[in-house]
Amino acid sequence: MANQPEYRMTGSGNYSYSRYSGFQRTAIEAAKGLINKAITEKLEISNSVSSSNSPKTIRLADLGCSEGPNTFLAVQNIVDALELKFKHHGLLGPQLPDFHVFFSDMSSNDFNKLFTSLPPERKYYVTGVPGSFHGRLFPSASLHFVHSSYSVHILSRVPKEVEDKNSPAWNKGRIHYGNASDETFNAYEAQYLKDMENFLDARAHEVVHGGLVALILPGCPIGIPYSQVFIIKGFELLGSCFMDMAKQGIGILSEEKVDSFNIPIFFPSMQQLEAGVKRNGCFSIEMVDIIPQQMPKPKAFSSIVRSGMEGMTKKHFGDEFDLDMLFDLLSKKLEESFSNFDPEKAVTHFVLLKRKDSN
Amino acid sequence: MANQPEYRMTGSGNYSYSRYSGFQRTAIEAAKGLINKAITEKLEISNSVSSSNSPKTIRLADLGCSEGPNTFLAVQNIVDALELKFKHHGLLGPQLPDFHVFFSDMSSNDFNKLFTSLPPERKYYVTGVPGSFHGRLFPSASLHFVHSSYSVHILSRVPKEVEDKNSPAWNKGRIHYGNASDETFNAYEAQYLKDMENFLDARAHEVVHGGLVALILPGCPIGIPYSQVFIIKGFELLGSCFMDMAKQGIGILSEEKVDSFNIPIFFPSMQQLEAGVKRNGCFSIEMVDIIPQQMPKPKAFSSIVRSGMEGMTKKHFGDEFDLDMLFDLLSKKLEESFSNFDPEKAVTHFVLLKRKDSN
Repeated sequence: MANQPEYRMTGSGNYSYSRYSGFQRTAIEAAKGLINKAITEKLEISNSVSSSNSPKTIRLADLGCSEGPNTFLAVQNIVDALELKFKHHGLLGPQLPDFHVFFSDMSSNDFNKLFTSLPPERKYYVTGVPGSFHGRLFPSASLHFVHSSYSVHILSRVPKEVEDKNSPAWNKGRIHYGNASDETFNAYEAQYLKDMENFLDARAHEVVHGGLVALILPGCPIGIPYSQVFIIKGFELLGSCFMDMAKQGIGILSEEKVDSFNIPIFFPSMQQLEAGVKRNGCFSIEMVDIIPQQMPKPKAFSSIVRSGMEGMTKKHFGDEFDLDMLFDLLSKKLEESFSNFDPEKAVTHFVLLKRKDSN
Repeated sequence: MANQPEYRMTGSGNYSYSRYSGFQRTAIEAAKGLINKAITEKLEISNSVSSSNSPKTIRLADLGCSEGPNTFLAVQNIVDALELKFKHHGLLGPQLPDFHVFFSDMSSNDFNKLFTSLPPERKYYVTGVPGSFHGRLFPSASLHFVHSSYSVHILSRVPKEVEDKNSPAWNKGRIHYGNASDETFNAYEAQYLKDMENFLDARAHEVVHGGLVALILPGCPIGIPYSQVFIIKGFELLGSCFMDMAKQGIGILSEEKVDSFNIPIFFPSMQQLEAGVKRNGCFSIEMVDIIPQQMPKPKAFSSIVRSGMEGMTKKHFGDEFDLDMLFDLLSKKLEESFSNFDPEKAVTHFVLLKRKDSN
């Protein structure tokens, strides 16, 4: 961890995540019914709350919480559903457990902003947890509910072959695996598999038996080549914008600088997600669903990508790099291309896992 | 909480807390032996760690942790002592509990700095907890060990009578209760009593039965008038520096501006501390001790006060206010006065409380 760069998908200022997180917000709102169903039908409260007089604590984590406000919405949904469930089970007033919420993201996340914008009327105790969810973050068997929205598709690193000039996976002239060689795609997929394995291993230790893990993440629809998935096409077009600027000598860009820039994101299919869970073996898959996600308009999509990419881009290309020009160019390319795209091909996966009793 | 100003004793830049926290650091180092003794002799581990196979979690909180590095030193001492105790009780390897450390301070604390400067080789899981320790911060019966060093002497607010022109406690021409009227001192003392009551009430809910609370704080020696305590004298002199500058029309200071500035700190005697614990009734006093604290030299003392006061001072008097001049003046006044002072009159209290089984 210590020597590994942290990949966080956030911008700042006008294009900050908190301003342009509406896309992710609609997914959280759409997932509300699924979360309610998960808690009502799947959470085993007998393991969580005893019938003794002393109130117990229910511990929830939001992994990849960013700086708010989406995380507050997601957590409120979960706490409301839990409270309702406990009340239905006859727990009242002081018998209700305390809720302890762990907001977690990389240590480079703006926790100061998160902490100063907490909802004042919250019904839970707050903590912030810095670190990568690809490793352990919590004590053993300490969490009852883990939530992660629009985060586990972010890889722990760019696959190293993709950055290696001597590898067949070297991703020259592109910044993602859309329209890249099979070797590049395979390197991305291998990194995803390894990261997902680490993610599930860590959660298997941390989640109590009968506890739940709800994952919400963008992915590839079944039976559609990834080259036709609009979000992957969007990154492909963004790569071509970088290359156009480099070829025209605009700004301080060089082609080499673009060659060494790659976006550490992978969009798995539902089969890939399920296969990872089965390989890990500690969780049962309790629910899978597709959350409908309206494809944003080109200009809005460009702003969403910018809000996620600005930090990374500045870090790689320098503060002087003309981001306005880049994203104007992207907006235009998206307008030209997106008329050909089927908005149905944008999907957000919802997967609910339950920690098995053994293993 | 929400509408209350947050009083944090920190400066920034050259006079940041992390640079000038050596004075507090020596207290933590001096307290190490006392903490070891507390854990060895006073902590009831039977309540904390079961003999079953599943490892349990020991939860520690450092209240008023600031941004580091002192808090890391204090926490490491505690974790080392706990680990040693568990090993002596025959717990080995995976039988050892996980340690979950909650670093807590006001939400205006720089948690980003805290999180990015964590010791890489730590043997505990980290969280940050924003909020005032004068209220609830944690779920019921969730903490095994609470530590707070150089923090609980900071009041939740300036007593309101002290800021009220129509009150006999109005503190005209001074910034603290040193050399002030009895009414001013009484208002400070009443605020301290109320804050300590709230602190202990909250901890009584949060700490498990048999759990420990270790408090380290500067205070008044027994049998010495507070006017002779060097740290209180120091604030008295600082007040006179403000007034000198105001009277000479230096900077943008007015006497009214000084009249409305007061430092929300109270230095209790050991009797006052013990009386508060007895009134609360939920804790037994297991250890009390005086940690020897060498009186710093005038220049060093001035820098320590500056590191604690810079933020507050700028907030009240504005960014343009000449802090260099103020603290140079303080340095000079300290040199003139401190030769008369008995360094023995600087004390740091150590108090160890144990949560009783009933109440």
